[in-house]
Amino acid sequence: MKKLLPILLCFFLLVGVFGAAHAQFAKPEFAVKYRKSVMFLIAQHFGRMAAMVNEKASYNKAVFADNAMVVETLSRLPWPAFMVPGTDKGDTALKSSAFEQQAKFSELAQIFEKQTTDLVIKAKSGEFDAIKTQFGEVGKSCKACHSQFRSQ
Amino acid sequence: MKKLLPILLCFFLLVGVFGAAHAQFAKPEFAVKYRKSVMFLIAQHFGRMAAMVNEKASYNKAVFADNAMVVETLSRLPWPAFMVPGTDKGDTALKSSAFEQQAKFSELAQIFEKQTTDLVIKAKSGEFDAIKTQFGEVGKSCKACHSQFRSQ
Repeated sequence: MKKLLPILLCFFLLVGVFGAAHAQFAKPEFAVKYRKSVMFLIAQHFGRMAAMVNEKASYNKAVFADNAMVVETLSRLPWPAFMVPGTDKGDTALKSSAFEQQAKFSELAQIFEKQTTDLVIKAKSGEFDAIKTQFGEVGKSCKACHSQFRSQ
Repeated sequence: MKKLLPILLCFFLLVGVFGAAHAQFAKPEFAVKYRKSVMFLIAQHFGRMAAMVNEKASYNKAVFADNAMVVETLSRLPWPAFMVPGTDKGDTALKSSAFEQQAKFSELAQIFEKQTTDLVIKAKSGEFDAIKTQFGEVGKSCKACHSQFRSQ
Protein backbone atom coordinates (compact mmCIF):
# COMPACT_ATOMS: atom_id res chain seq x y z
CA MET A 1 0.00 0.00 0.00
CA LYS A 2 2.93 2.33 0.77
CA LYS A 3 4.13 2.01 -2.81
CA LEU A 4 0.64 2.22 -4.25
CA LEU A 5 -0.21 5.53 -2.59
CA PRO A 6 2.11 7.80 -4.59
CA ILE A 7 1.02 6.06 -7.80
CA LEU A 8 -2.65 6.62 -6.95
CA LEU A 9 -1.90 10.20 -5.97
CA CYS A 10 -0.16 10.82 -9.29
CA PHE A 11 -3.09 9.26 -11.10
CA PHE A 12 -5.65 11.50 -9.43
CA LEU A 13 -3.47 14.58 -9.87
CA LEU A 14 -3.19 13.81 -13.57
CA VAL A 15 -6.93 13.26 -13.87
CA GLY A 16 -7.38 16.62 -12.18
CA VAL A 17 -4.96 18.36 -14.52
CA PHE A 18 -5.74 16.61 -17.76
CA GLY A 19 -9.01 14.81 -17.20
CA ALA A 20 -11.21 17.47 -18.72
CA ALA A 21 -8.98 17.95 -21.76
CA HIS A 22 -11.36 16.24 -24.20
CA ALA A 23 -14.44 18.02 -22.92
CA GLN A 24 -12.98 21.51 -23.13
CA PHE A 25 -12.54 21.68 -26.90
CA ALA A 26 -15.25 21.29 -29.52
CA LYS A 27 -12.63 20.00 -32.02
CA PRO A 28 -9.03 18.79 -31.62
CA GLU A 29 -7.91 21.68 -33.91
CA PHE A 30 -9.24 24.12 -31.32
CA ALA A 31 -6.97 22.56 -28.70
CA VAL A 32 -3.96 23.11 -30.97
CA LYS A 33 -5.02 26.68 -31.73
CA TYR A 34 -5.68 27.29 -28.05
CA ARG A 35 -2.24 26.20 -26.84
CA LYS A 36 -0.50 28.00 -29.72
CA SER A 37 -2.39 31.19 -28.85
CA VAL A 38 -1.38 30.94 -25.21
CA MET A 39 2.25 30.21 -26.06
CA PHE A 40 2.40 33.07 -28.56
CA LEU A 41 1.06 35.50 -25.98
CA ILE A 42 3.47 34.21 -23.34
CA ALA A 43 6.34 34.70 -25.79
CA GLN A 44 5.24 38.27 -26.55
CA HIS A 45 4.98 39.28 -22.91
CA PHE A 46 8.16 37.39 -22.06
CA GLY A 47 9.88 39.34 -24.83
CA ARG A 48 8.72 42.67 -23.37
CA MET A 49 10.23 41.68 -20.02
CA ALA A 50 13.39 40.37 -21.70
CA ALA A 51 13.93 43.79 -23.31
CA MET A 52 13.95 45.36 -19.83
CA VAL A 53 16.07 42.63 -18.28
CA ASN A 54 18.60 42.95 -21.10
CA GLU A 55 18.46 46.74 -20.76
CA LYS A 56 17.32 47.26 -24.34
CA ALA A 57 14.24 48.98 -22.94
CA SER A 58 14.21 51.09 -19.79
CA TYR A 59 12.98 49.26 -16.72
CA ASN A 60 9.52 50.28 -15.54
CA LYS A 61 8.38 48.55 -12.37
CA ALA A 62 4.62 48.72 -13.11
CA VAL A 63 4.96 47.67 -16.75
CA PHE A 64 7.25 44.78 -15.83
CA ALA A 65 4.87 43.62 -13.10
CA ASP A 66 1.88 43.82 -15.47
CA ASN A 67 3.69 41.63 -17.97
CA ALA A 68 4.70 39.17 -15.25
CA MET A 69 1.09 38.91 -14.04
CA VAL A 70 -0.20 38.27 -17.56
CA VAL A 71 2.37 35.50 -18.01
CA GLU A 72 1.41 34.04 -14.63
CA THR A 73 -2.27 33.89 -15.65
CA LEU A 74 -1.40 32.42 -19.05
CA SER A 75 0.94 29.84 -17.50
CA ARG A 76 -2.09 28.09 -15.93
CA LEU A 77 -4.00 27.67 -19.16
CA PRO A 78 -2.46 25.57 -21.90
CA TRP A 79 -1.81 22.16 -20.32
CA PRO A 80 -5.12 20.36 -20.95
CA ALA A 81 -4.91 21.54 -24.57
CA PHE A 82 -1.66 19.57 -24.95
CA MET A 83 -3.30 16.37 -23.78
CA VAL A 84 -6.03 16.05 -26.39
CA PRO A 85 -5.47 12.72 -28.19
CA GLY A 86 -4.18 12.98 -31.74
CA THR A 87 -2.96 16.56 -31.42
CA ASP A 88 0.67 15.49 -31.63
CA LYS A 89 0.09 15.10 -35.39
CA GLY A 90 -0.09 17.76 -38.08
CA ASP A 91 0.88 21.40 -37.65
CA THR A 92 2.32 21.19 -34.17
CA ALA A 93 5.70 21.04 -32.46
CA LEU A 94 4.38 18.76 -29.70
CA LYS A 95 6.33 15.51 -29.44
CA SER A 96 4.32 12.32 -29.01
CA SER A 97 6.45 11.56 -25.97
CA ALA A 98 4.34 14.09 -24.03
CA PHE A 99 1.49 11.55 -24.07
CA GLU A 100 3.77 8.75 -22.95
CA GLN A 101 5.33 10.79 -20.15
CA GLN A 102 2.36 12.73 -18.82
CA ALA A 103 3.69 12.77 -15.26
CA LYS A 104 6.95 14.36 -16.42
CA PHE A 105 5.06 16.80 -18.63
CA SER A 106 2.82 17.76 -15.72
CA GLU A 107 5.81 18.18 -13.41
CA LEU A 108 7.57 20.54 -15.84
CA ALA A 109 4.35 22.49 -16.38
CA GLN A 110 3.98 22.97 -12.65
CA ILE A 111 7.58 24.13 -12.27
CA PHE A 112 6.96 26.74 -14.98
CA GLU A 113 3.79 27.90 -13.20
CA LYS A 114 5.67 28.23 -9.91
CA GLN A 115 8.52 30.16 -11.50
CA THR A 116 6.07 32.64 -13.05
CA THR A 117 4.43 33.17 -9.66
CA ASP A 118 7.85 33.81 -8.12
CA LEU A 119 8.56 36.30 -10.90
CA VAL A 120 5.40 38.23 -10.02
CA ILE A 121 6.54 38.41 -6.39
CA LYS A 122 9.97 39.68 -7.41
CA ALA A 123 8.46 42.07 -9.97
CA LYS A 124 6.29 43.65 -7.30
CA SER A 125 9.34 44.15 -5.07
CA GLY A 126 10.99 46.19 -7.79
CA GLU A 127 14.44 44.79 -6.92
CA PHE A 128 15.98 44.66 -10.34
CA ASP A 129 18.77 42.16 -9.60
CA ALA A 130 16.33 39.73 -7.99
CA ILE A 131 13.99 40.19 -10.96
CA LYS A 132 16.80 39.42 -13.42
CA THR A 133 17.72 36.24 -11.54
CA GLN A 134 14.12 35.05 -11.35
CA PHE A 135 13.53 35.93 -14.99
CA GLY A 136 16.40 33.56 -15.78
CA GLU A 137 14.70 30.83 -13.75
CA VAL A 138 11.48 31.26 -15.74
CA GLY A 139 13.49 30.98 -18.96
CA LYS A 140 15.12 27.78 -17.72
CA SER A 141 11.72 26.27 -16.92
CA CYS A 142 10.52 27.05 -20.47
CA LYS A 143 13.62 25.41 -21.90
CA ALA A 144 13.38 22.33 -19.68
CA CYS A 145 9.97 21.47 -21.13
CA HIS A 146 10.72 22.53 -24.71
CA SER A 147 13.88 20.45 -24.88
CA GLN A 148 11.95 17.36 -23.85
CA PHE A 149 8.56 17.76 -25.49
CA ARG A 150 8.89 20.24 -28.33
CA SER A 151 10.43 19.33 -31.66
CA GLN A 152 13.04 21.84 -32.83
CA MET B 1 -10.16 76.54 -23.27
CA LYS B 2 -13.31 74.95 -21.91
CA LYS B 3 -13.87 73.20 -25.23
CA LEU B 4 -10.22 72.37 -25.65
CA LEU B 5 -9.89 70.53 -22.34
CA PRO B 6 -11.99 67.45 -23.17
CA ILE B 7 -10.26 67.19 -26.53
CA LEU B 8 -6.85 67.32 -24.88
CA LEU B 9 -7.98 64.83 -22.27
CA CYS B 10 -9.18 62.43 -24.96
CA PHE B 11 -5.89 62.87 -26.77
CA PHE B 12 -3.81 62.00 -23.73
CA LEU B 13 -6.06 59.10 -22.81
CA LEU B 14 -5.68 57.70 -26.31
CA VAL B 15 -1.92 58.16 -26.19
CA GLY B 16 -1.98 56.24 -22.92
CA VAL B 17 -4.06 53.41 -24.33
CA PHE B 18 -2.68 53.22 -27.84
CA GLY B 19 0.53 55.20 -27.76
CA ALA B 20 2.84 52.26 -27.34
CA ALA B 21 1.13 50.18 -30.04
CA HIS B 22 3.97 50.50 -32.55
CA ALA B 23 6.69 49.80 -30.03
CA GLN B 24 5.12 46.65 -28.63
CA PHE B 25 5.31 44.53 -31.75
CA ALA B 26 8.41 43.61 -33.70
CA LYS B 27 6.31 43.30 -36.91
CA PRO B 28 2.75 44.36 -37.82
CA GLU B 29 1.90 40.66 -38.41
CA PHE B 30 2.67 40.00 -34.76
CA ALA B 31 0.06 42.59 -33.75
CA VAL B 32 -2.56 40.80 -35.86
CA LYS B 33 -1.54 37.42 -34.46
CA TYR B 34 -1.54 38.85 -30.94
CA ARG B 35 -5.07 40.26 -31.08
CA LYS B 36 -6.37 37.13 -32.84
CA SER B 37 -4.81 34.96 -30.15
CA VAL B 38 -6.41 37.01 -27.38
CA MET B 39 -9.81 37.02 -29.08
CA PHE B 40 -9.69 33.28 -29.71
CA LEU B 41 -8.89 32.61 -26.06
CA ILE B 42 -11.65 34.98 -24.92
CA ALA B 43 -14.10 33.14 -27.20
CA GLN B 44 -13.05 29.76 -25.80
CA HIS B 45 -13.45 30.81 -22.17
CA PHE B 46 -16.63 32.71 -22.98
CA GLY B 47 -17.96 29.51 -24.56
CA ARG B 48 -17.21 27.51 -21.42
CA MET B 49 -19.21 30.00 -19.38
CA ALA B 50 -21.99 30.10 -21.99
CA ALA B 51 -22.42 26.34 -21.65
CA MET B 52 -23.09 26.80 -17.94
CA VAL B 53 -25.31 29.85 -18.39
CA ASN B 54 -27.34 27.97 -21.01
CA GLU B 55 -27.44 24.93 -18.72
CA LYS B 56 -25.75 22.69 -21.27
CA ALA B 57 -23.04 22.09 -18.69
CA SER B 58 -23.61 21.93 -14.97
CA TYR B 59 -22.82 25.15 -13.13
CA ASN B 60 -19.67 25.08 -11.05
CA LYS B 61 -18.97 28.24 -9.10
CA ALA B 62 -15.18 27.87 -8.99
CA VAL B 63 -14.86 26.86 -12.65
CA PHE B 64 -17.12 29.69 -13.77
CA ALA B 65 -15.17 32.23 -11.69
CA ASP B 66 -11.85 30.94 -13.06
CA ASN B 67 -13.10 31.43 -16.61
CA ALA B 68 -14.43 34.90 -15.76
CA MET B 69 -11.06 35.91 -14.29
CA VAL B 70 -9.19 34.68 -17.36
CA VAL B 71 -11.51 36.71 -19.60
CA GLU B 72 -11.05 39.75 -17.37
CA THR B 73 -7.25 39.51 -17.70
CA LEU B 74 -7.48 38.95 -21.46
CA SER B 75 -9.92 41.85 -21.89
CA ARG B 76 -7.12 44.31 -20.98
CA LEU B 77 -4.67 43.06 -23.58
CA PRO B 78 -5.63 43.36 -27.22
CA TRP B 79 -6.36 47.07 -27.81
CA PRO B 80 -2.91 48.42 -28.69
CA ALA B 81 -2.58 45.53 -31.16
CA PHE B 82 -5.63 46.84 -33.04
CA MET B 83 -4.06 50.27 -33.46
CA VAL B 84 -0.92 49.29 -35.35
CA PRO B 85 -1.03 51.15 -38.69
CA GLY B 86 -1.72 49.02 -41.75
CA THR B 87 -3.14 46.09 -39.81
CA ASP B 88 -6.65 46.71 -41.15
CA LYS B 89 -5.42 45.14 -44.41
CA GLY B 90 -4.96 41.46 -45.24
CA ASP B 91 -6.13 38.54 -43.15
CA THR B 92 -8.12 40.48 -40.57
CA ALA B 93 -11.72 41.34 -39.78
CA LEU B 94 -10.76 44.78 -38.45
CA LYS B 95 -12.57 47.59 -40.25
CA SER B 96 -10.51 50.64 -41.22
CA SER B 97 -13.07 52.77 -39.40
CA ALA B 98 -11.43 51.72 -36.12
CA PHE B 99 -8.50 54.00 -36.99
CA GLU B 100 -10.80 56.86 -37.91
CA GLN B 101 -12.89 56.52 -34.74
CA GLN B 102 -10.27 55.70 -32.14
CA ALA B 103 -12.17 57.46 -29.36
CA LYS B 104 -15.27 55.34 -30.03
CA PHE B 105 -13.15 52.20 -30.31
CA SER B 106 -11.48 53.00 -27.00
CA GLU B 107 -14.83 53.70 -25.33
CA LEU B 108 -16.27 50.36 -26.43
CA ALA B 109 -13.10 48.55 -25.35
CA GLN B 110 -13.38 50.10 -21.90
CA ILE B 111 -17.04 49.13 -21.58
CA PHE B 112 -16.10 45.54 -22.39
CA GLU B 113 -13.35 45.61 -19.76
CA LYS B 114 -15.74 46.97 -17.16
CA GLN B 115 -18.38 44.35 -17.96
CA THR B 116 -15.84 41.55 -17.56
CA THR B 117 -14.80 42.95 -14.16
CA ASP B 118 -18.46 43.04 -13.10
CA LEU B 119 -18.82 39.45 -14.27
CA VAL B 120 -15.94 38.39 -11.99
CA ILE B 121 -17.67 40.09 -9.05
CA LYS B 122 -20.95 38.30 -9.82
CA ALA B 123 -19.16 35.01 -10.47
CA LYS B 124 -17.53 35.15 -7.05
CA SER B 125 -20.93 35.74 -5.43
CA GLY B 126 -22.20 32.50 -6.92
CA GLU B 127 -25.67 33.98 -7.50
CA PHE B 128 -26.63 32.25 -10.69
CA ASP B 129 -29.38 34.64 -11.82
CA ALA B 130 -27.13 37.66 -11.34
CA ILE B 131 -24.36 35.83 -13.18
CA LYS B 132 -26.67 35.08 -16.11
CA THR B 133 -27.74 38.73 -16.35
CA GLN B 134 -24.17 40.01 -16.21
CA PHE B 135 -23.01 37.39 -18.71
CA GLY B 136 -25.60 38.85 -21.08
CA GLU B 137 -24.12 42.32 -20.52
CA VAL B 138 -20.66 41.07 -21.42
CA GLY B 139 -22.10 39.55 -24.59
CA LYS B 140 -23.75 42.84 -25.50
CA SER B 141 -20.46 44.70 -25.05
CA CYS B 142 -18.73 42.23 -27.42
CA LYS B 143 -21.45 42.75 -29.98
CA ALA B 144 -21.45 46.55 -29.67
CA CYS B 145 -17.81 46.69 -30.77
CA HIS B 146 -18.01 43.89 -33.35
CA SER B 147 -21.01 45.42 -35.09
CA GLN B 148 -19.10 48.69 -35.52
CA PHE B 149 -15.54 47.66 -36.13
CA ARG B 150 -15.50 44.03 -37.28
CA SER B 151 -16.43 43.00 -40.78
CA GLN B 152 -18.91 40.14 -40.88
